[in-house]
Amino acid sequence: MDYPPRIRELLERAGATQGDAVVVTAKGRPYPGVLMPHHSFSGEDVLTVKLGNGYNVGILSGDVEAIRVSAKASPAKAERRLPSPRAGRPTLAVLGTGGTIASYVDYRTGAVHPAVTAEELVFSVPDLLDVGNLRARVIYGIYSEDLKPENWRHLAREAAAELEGGAAGVVIPHGTDTLHFTTAALAFMLRDLTGPVVVVGSQRSSDRPSSDAASNLLAAAHVAAANLGEVVAVMHGETSDADAAIHRGTKVRKMHASRRDAFRSLNAPPLGRVRPDGRVDLSERALPRSKGPVAVDDRLEPDVGMFTFYPGQRPSEVAGILQGLRGAVVAGTGLGHVAHDLIPVLGKASRDGVVVVMTTQTLQGRVSMNVYDTGRDLLKAGVVSGEDMLPETAYVKLMWVLAHTRDPAEAARAMATNVAGELNPSIGLPEFAE
Amino acid sequence: MDYPPRIRELLERAGATQGDAVVVTAKGRPYPGVLMPHHSFSGEDVLTVKLGNGYNVGILSGDVEAIRVSAKASPAKAERRLPSPRAGRPTLAVLGTGGTIASYVDYRTGAVHPAVTAEELVFSVPDLLDVGNLRARVIYGIYSEDLKPENWRHLAREAAAELEGGAAGVVIPHGTDTLHFTTAALAFMLRDLTGPVVVVGSQRSSDRPSSDAASNLLAAAHVAAANLGEVVAVMHGETSDADAAIHRGTKVRKMHASRRDAFRSLNAPPLGRVRPDGRVDLSERALPRSKGPVAVDDRLEPDVGMFTFYPGQRPSEVAGILQGLRGAVVAGTGLGHVAHDLIPVLGKASRDGVVVVMTTQTLQGRVSMNVYDTGRDLLKAGVVSGEDMLPETAYVKLMWVLAHTRDPAEAARAMATNVAGELNPSIGLPEFAE
Repeated sequence: MDYPPRIRELLERAGATQGDAVVVTAKGRPYPGVLMPHHSFSGEDVLTVKLGNGYNVGILSGDVEAIRVSAKASPAKAERRLPSPRAGRPTLAVLGTGGTIASYVDYRTGAVHPAVTAEELVFSVPDLLDVGNLRARVIYGIYSEDLKPENWRHLAREAAAELEGGAAGVVIPHGTDTLHFTTAALAFMLRDLTGPVVVVGSQRSSDRPSSDAASNLLAAAHVAAANLGEVVAVMHGETSDADAAIHRGTKVRKMHASRRDAFRSLNAPPLGRVRPDGRVDLSERALPRSKGPVAVDDRLEPDVGMFTFYPGQRPSEVAGILQGLRGAVVAGTGLGHVAHDLIPVLGKASRDGVVVVMTTQTLQGRVSMNVYDTGRDLLKAGVVSGEDMLPETAYVKLMWVLAHTRDPAEAARAMATNVAGELNPSIGLPEFAE
Repeated sequence: MDYPPRIRELLERAGATQGDAVVVTAKGRPYPGVLMPHHSFSGEDVLTVKLGNGYNVGILSGDVEAIRVSAKASPAKAERRLPSPRAGRPTLAVLGTGGTIASYVDYRTGAVHPAVTAEELVFSVPDLLDVGNLRARVIYGIYSEDLKPENWRHLAREAAAELEGGAAGVVIPHGTDTLHFTTAALAFMLRDLTGPVVVVGSQRSSDRPSSDAASNLLAAAHVAAANLGEVVAVMHGETSDADAAIHRGTKVRKMHASRRDAFRSLNAPPLGRVRPDGRVDLSERALPRSKGPVAVDDRLEPDVGMFTFYPGQRPSEVAGILQGLRGAVVAGTGLGHVAHDLIPVLGKASRDGVVVVMTTQTLQGRVSMNVYDTGRDLLKAGVVSGEDMLPETAYVKLMWVLAHTRDPAEAARAMATNVAGELNPSIGLPEFAE
């Protein structure tokens, strides 16, 4: 996008073009960085500079006192190589999967491209190189809505291989749409983690003035170096807070379409946070690194489905969804209910060996099927309580459980047994406070 | 449930049995009310008295200084009659539908029963009689998960009849599970409201020490007397707040299985609140009472469905759900996405005349299908944006819209046109704040 007139004039006077390394002085302060293309979301009067830490700073044209070009844009950018590892620093493995966070800005055209090489992934945030020795691979370039359970299995194996190969931690840049499905899947598949597996996304692409790509990636790298043996999501904290939040992989969900603080821990507080200076605060609940070796158990039963109940839903619709499945997660209402005319359908499926697990579409709180008749009728029909699991987490867990047993009673017991922090005891939780 | 020993001793000494009108003095203060049965959720050492305003107060046995019986429980309680209307006060119509809020405590047995008579409904909260002249009818005694679209239509006609028959406002006690579907449905069906239609529920039954039944019902009555011409939900406010919240019927959703503050306005602030003293504060956005007459347009197309996308969902499952439908709401991921392998299925349905509307399973934020390829591909396939509508609201609206036109293009236009506060303009909303 062309620069607006006043910005263009300033740049022409300085001989600066987009992609140049520049030092812009404004209000007496120098801002060294790369001159960004103009973005339609920026104000008409704003010059955007990408600092060394990957953050974008927007400077009003009236505040600009000087622009100095320190290096012209290099057309050979893509040939940059990762530096050689330095002794005494942790090795962090970066496994790119696609999504907004794994895109980079082509400074010459202003376009945002998916990162297709490891270097593009890492050089979008040069400060990453200060956190540790990086080794990076691009595994997929897929929007997360297109990721399949098969991809979760592959990712689990790749993350384990990195840890077994000496990485102190693994960072997985990922699209945000289904990020919480992936963290839940990895959490069930990976045991005895010798280091953190950190899935990170961004809600605003790296060319936008408000991008969270660089700050989230940097926070994720700090978490990957911490004493943590869990699968977590690291994302921008609540808006009023400059920190990034660390969410347990089985307790996190995307709760807003566009806000940077869209990811929230539900039915559990976050596992910790990353301060702006890179310091990582972890809750006592967080599992520390194990001695290893990392155990991978990536089997998933594919014939599992999930559906949300609504008034007017027909028994025939539910019967159709259950056809051919070995397990199904229902997102019911309230404490875990559906209309009475659906209960015989769930009962028949249950008698036929389908494991039906009840969760709640309120997302927060706990299924409790002993309070009202409807719940008791569902229990009698063989429906299993999903307790305080998110529907998404229960779905992934049910795929994993049914790959390990074909016995419905054993599967029901496994669903009620905590594996990766997905179940919390009910006593003392705020949702039961009087 | 039997009283625990220390409480039993105190009561025996005073000659008091449950259901008696008593005055309990504790720490120098008198608590006049009805002696409640013991509840398993109360502490072992707590005596519960239901005050005149319907609130329960729990008194530690050690604090009890005196118990005086002012009237023995009357076995003829069910024969109490509503008082005659008094001039100069608003008439409020109460239409019972069932659910936790429409239950009352049988003081003799301690059991909680659904209210089956108007008197039982009203006498559970005697203070209601101070707000206005009440006329009450029990229309259903149904758990809300069993309510059908046909019930919404019936309720709309009954509410309109009450307003046309001189009621200043209508209070509808309702189960909480699907309360927000009902408020959305009534909001689309009722125009030119001469008074508020207030749907109210309770998350804890009236025998529990922490019950919100009385306070919610009383708050709803105050709202029904206010200068408001909308369909709203009135429920307990956020926990830190003694106020009740007034939610626009098309923007509210149950967001917790059990908490009293489970109901939240999403993508819009609440429309107002009710102070503990009964004062009603309304936002400027709230529509005032219209001059009438009330217009009822209760037609609904029954062949409409709704489903939530998840990774691993099969195209054949979606094709099965869409079979025989004239409209479908999808709760996609993020800005309104599904996996690419589902897009041809939605495209075919769309070409066959099915109106497919995209909403987001993040619940908060706005569908925006012009940002990524997936969204653009969905738009090309004929999928319609649900903007910032909740999936539940979009589902009810689509049923209503398709009952008025069989032309998909016209239906798409109607879905994008605000009818009852369900669509907000995007500019300046917090979710787009940089």
